[in-house]
Amino acid sequence: MIHDPTLRDGQHAVRHQLGVAALRGYAEAADAAGIPVVEVGHGNGLGASSLQVGRAAVSDDEMLSTVREALRHSKMGVFMLPGWGTSDDLRKAVAHGADVIRIGVHCTETSLAERHLGLLAEQGAEAHCVLLMSHMATPAELAEHAARAVGYGARAVGIMDSAGHFLPQDVTERIGAMAEAVGPSGVPVIFHGHNNLGMAVANSVAAAEAGAGIIDGCARGFGAGAGNTQLEVVVPVLERTGFGTGIDLYALLDAAEFAERELMPAPPVTGSLSIVSGLAGVFSGFKHQVLDHSGRAGVDPRDVFFELGRRQAIAGQEDLIVDVVAELSARRAAP
Amino acid sequence: MIHDPTLRDGQHAVRHQLGVAALRGYAEAADAAGIPVVEVGHGNGLGASSLQVGRAAVSDDEMLSTVREALRHSKMGVFMLPGWGTSDDLRKAVAHGADVIRIGVHCTETSLAERHLGLLAEQGAEAHCVLLMSHMATPAELAEHAARAVGYGARAVGIMDSAGHFLPQDVTERIGAMAEAVGPSGVPVIFHGHNNLGMAVANSVAAAEAGAGIIDGCARGFGAGAGNTQLEVVVPVLERTGFGTGIDLYALLDAAEFAERELMPAPPVTGSLSIVSGLAGVFSGFKHQVLDHSGRAGVDPRDVFFELGRRQAIAGQEDLIVDVVAELSARRAAP
Repeated sequence: MIHDPTLRDGQHAVRHQLGVAALRGYAEAADAAGIPVVEVGHGNGLGASSLQVGRAAVSDDEMLSTVREALRHSKMGVFMLPGWGTSDDLRKAVAHGADVIRIGVHCTETSLAERHLGLLAEQGAEAHCVLLMSHMATPAELAEHAARAVGYGARAVGIMDSAGHFLPQDVTERIGAMAEAVGPSGVPVIFHGHNNLGMAVANSVAAAEAGAGIIDGCARGFGAGAGNTQLEVVVPVLERTGFGTGIDLYALLDAAEFAERELMPAPPVTGSLSIVSGLAGVFSGFKHQVLDHSGRAGVDPRDVFFELGRRQAIAGQEDLIVDVVAELSARRAAP
Repeated sequence: MIHDPTLRDGQHAVRHQLGVAALRGYAEAADAAGIPVVEVGHGNGLGASSLQVGRAAVSDDEMLSTVREALRHSKMGVFMLPGWGTSDDLRKAVAHGADVIRIGVHCTETSLAERHLGLLAEQGAEAHCVLLMSHMATPAELAEHAARAVGYGARAVGIMDSAGHFLPQDVTERIGAMAEAVGPSGVPVIFHGHNNLGMAVANSVAAAEAGAGIIDGCARGFGAGAGNTQLEVVVPVLERTGFGTGIDLYALLDAAEFAERELMPAPPVTGSLSIVSGLAGVFSGFKHQVLDHSGRAGVDPRDVFFELGRRQAIAGQEDLIVDVVAELSARRAAP
């Protein structure tokens, strides 16, 4: 039930610079702990390495062959955002031995995943569909989109709390609605948390209790800003709550120590802008651009995040940052 | 309803070495944010500075006069463990202008606080009683001890999750029982969390929902090991959950940034031994001695923590560490 995107989501925290030795070492440690799925890739997934979002230190091909070789029992997972990655990237990943392939789309845009999910079903790969920025949709909408994804061939479907906005009750409602919608088909529901409001572990437990079958976690929470659900914490907490994971605790703790030592300059810290973006419900990946534009205009970046939240900004709408900064700056200058 | 022990509990993370400028700067920032109570002292409280647990960089007298001078609106709080501190220390704290004085005792030893609570009531000071290692007592026992503390003169009574062992349901049961027992007297219940299992914020919200009137939090979670409840996270989360705090969010975020920059080498990280001590229900302050003894004997320190948990070790029983290490070492050597 545990899915570990340390080597993919963690890349955001190190500008996609994980090297081959780090990838291999962590994959071996995770494999030894009995983690079911180890996901690897550029932070934005297959095909995303570029000047615009950052070039990865290692190519997709080399990441996949390195981790494939390191895993003896765990499945290898990959992630793709349609637009960044293409059908060719999916075929290549399957050829490299990726067992679990996740397609990520904005929470109300499941149709964008239809073609890719169909392709993967044809190839016999285990395709998952994850809905991003899921706090922006109601439980009913998420249930509807989950059912659609299953119709397209997804063998698991879930939500990412991309902005780290959820409190446990929010998760209970959403996962509950999704599990009810897709449960009869036997397709498990995924929950992927972020820790902006200190709730990643509590939200993950709430998800499991509401019927989620797959919980994501990263070693030491490795990820951008406040980071993800801390894997080596959520696993024993799930065990204590009655959800068996089959993972060896000591080997898991060892893998996390390897990660802290070899993958990251320091574990994630929940700083002011992580908290504000979580409260505002804005993707924290906007941080650098918000700081850049607001700094030049002398506007408080926290105000920018709250205003972006009111405007329901989503990834890809970076232009809104410029508009908001200009407007706040003008408002300040007015008498 | 918010109580901030950053300048007391955080001392554990820097071996009680906070200097005068750091104390003054944080107290001013917390005061500007409208935090109701700012607690200061040696990590183990009044009178505890010693070779045995570590000498503080600044004397009790100077800490109290520095923070008193820095606070314009916030109350000043202090903490005392009977045995480390004495009645003379309490009188001195009152003379220095301490408004809120907390007496800490093991969760089933309220009677040890009777004399001090009585003395403080005579002096007209606001006395609180906090029960340590509170996962070792049942909700009914805690309710009974809370009522006793009120009988001794406590004007607030609460629990510390000293081992960071609680999950939200545990907190709901305990705070609920205590609030029911002392609620009719109008005395608020305190919850003080630690983050060993990633649950400090969720536990604090559960406490407020179960009737707690005072929630403790430290800037960036500043404290030993996994740290305390992160103050600048729990405040907006409580606000979002419907509990007004009267605290200014931006000034609070600024205070936390000051704390990260000026008080600590780095914010707390939840490492292996923090997780294990939380699971085992053992005071994480044992860490250095466990590492020391187990290292010399070639025993896994994680095994030592779990065994200490089975034996229900409490603070002051450091001798048990030696016994446990010797026994595990012998067991390993046996054929």
